Amino acid sequence: MFGIVGDPIAQVRSPEMITWEFHRRGIDAVLVPMQVPAAEFDAIMSSLMRLPNFDGFVLTIPFKTRALAFADQLGLQAQVLGGVNFLVRRSDGRWCGDILDGMGCVSAFLSRGIPIEGRRLMIVGLGGAGGAIACAMAAHRPGRMQLYDINKQRSEFIQACIARISPATQVDIGPPSVQEMDILINASPVGMLDDARLPFEVQALPADLVVFDAIVMPEQTPLLALAERCGCTLVRGREMMLGQIPKMVDRFLNPDFV
Amino acid sequence: MFGIVGDPIAQVRSPEMITWEFHRRGIDAVLVPMQVPAAEFDAIMSSLMRLPNFDGFVLTIPFKTRALAFADQLGLQAQVLGGVNFLVRRSDGRWCGDILDGMGCVSAFLSRGIPIEGRRLMIVGLGGAGGAIACAMAAHRPGRMQLYDINKQRSEFIQACIARISPATQVDIGPPSVQEMDILINASPVGMLDDARLPFEVQALPADLVVFDAIVMPEQTPLLALAERCGCTLVRGREMMLGQIPKMVDRFLNPDFV
Repeated sequence: MFGIVGDPIAQVRSPEMITWEFHRRGIDAVLVPMQVPAAEFDAIMSSLMRLPNFDGFVLTIPFKTRALAFADQLGLQAQVLGGVNFLVRRSDGRWCGDILDGMGCVSAFLSRGIPIEGRRLMIVGLGGAGGAIACAMAAHRPGRMQLYDINKQRSEFIQACIARISPATQVDIGPPSVQEMDILINASPVGMLDDARLPFEVQALPADLVVFDAIVMPEQTPLLALAERCGCTLVRGREMMLGQIPKMVDRFLNPDFV
Repeated sequence: MFGIVGDPIAQVRSPEMITWEFHRRGIDAVLVPMQVPAAEFDAIMSSLMRLPNFDGFVLTIPFKTRALAFADQLGLQAQVLGGVNFLVRRSDGRWCGDILDGMGCVSAFLSRGIPIEGRRLMIVGLGGAGGAIACAMAAHRPGRMQLYDINKQRSEFIQACIARISPATQVDIGPPSVQEMDILINASPVGMLDDARLPFEVQALPADLVVFDAIVMPEQTPLLALAERCGCTLVRGREMMLGQIPKMVDRFLNPDFV
């Protein structure tokens, strides 16, 4: 048994996508959704990790940073970013975690043949997923990145991370904009579930823009609907999930060796 | 989402049997196994009940009595027996529970056309399930019941319950025996999973004996294997499960009205 922990939880697609990947590999395992009220996260998460037949958890909004405290060991991306999107129990009982959102997003772009190197990226939302996406994108040496988050300190932290990963990339902190941008990334939760808002005010998008939305539910977010009307290239949150699922399942099934 | 809580948990069949019943009714719900170490039951159970997307729990060995403390309201059988085998959250947030094992066992006997009235029953094991089975059987007025449990006080308590339910039934406390018995019921955990023991020492069983074992895994317990070799009529734990599942799913799906 594996679980995905978040609040809200209705939007998650891991239960079917990861369970499907287990079954594809002939593994009799299931991943189930577990809504944990944000105010009670610490107490409930610690209880869930004491269920001997639950061997790992995916962490989603708003717990990627808070879950860090539950990891005994961290992968390289989690060490840099200060967040995890999964935790898995090793055979010695210790829990290790890492964050794969960035890799999943990059993998979605590359499998669609959309280049990142040299291009201009606007990233809106730098929480657990957004920060990971920004850093993973940075590793592919974009020409320019503009970062926006409601938390200015977080923007500065991610800016510093990117500067280490890709010194040649120009990184600015600034308001959401699609002027002179090639790729627009929404990694904020705005537009999730019944939220009909766009992540920022915009009437139209250039047709040559690539628009990615990390939200998995609805599949057609308000931003993606606008992008589709404007003739943009769309990359969906589900593709980011697909990009990271084989890796996450590798970690779940072989926690001591990967 | 629904869960079954027990320790051990590998033997439970509710995950497939109750999930199948949900699906048969067109309900997109799943029941998953949750192993809770017995020493940590109170803390972990209280956390599990705070997951807003988990609406009910089945309780199994060894938690049927301890789970009573988590119920705000009890059904009639739970009130008598001091145990629950399920808890479900009502729309006002209160939890109600009851124990359906007895009804499930009786239903298994009746659907097989095995009469209970006037017959002589030996019941071994009077824990959560065994006590419920003894009382539910008593409601069908057996001629005689002999009770055995390692806890003498529990035997006396169930004896008193039976005396109220069926004053005409002769109820004795005594060692396991198949002499002058029509029905032998094992509701102890002896024989579960890898436990190769019989619940009591016996070489052979009379061919006209009906033998019921509440254990669901393995399906062929050591006791049932002996009973089969001796030509007895067998009633399996899975049949008791089948007998209570529709009722339990009714409660899970309509917690305010049933």
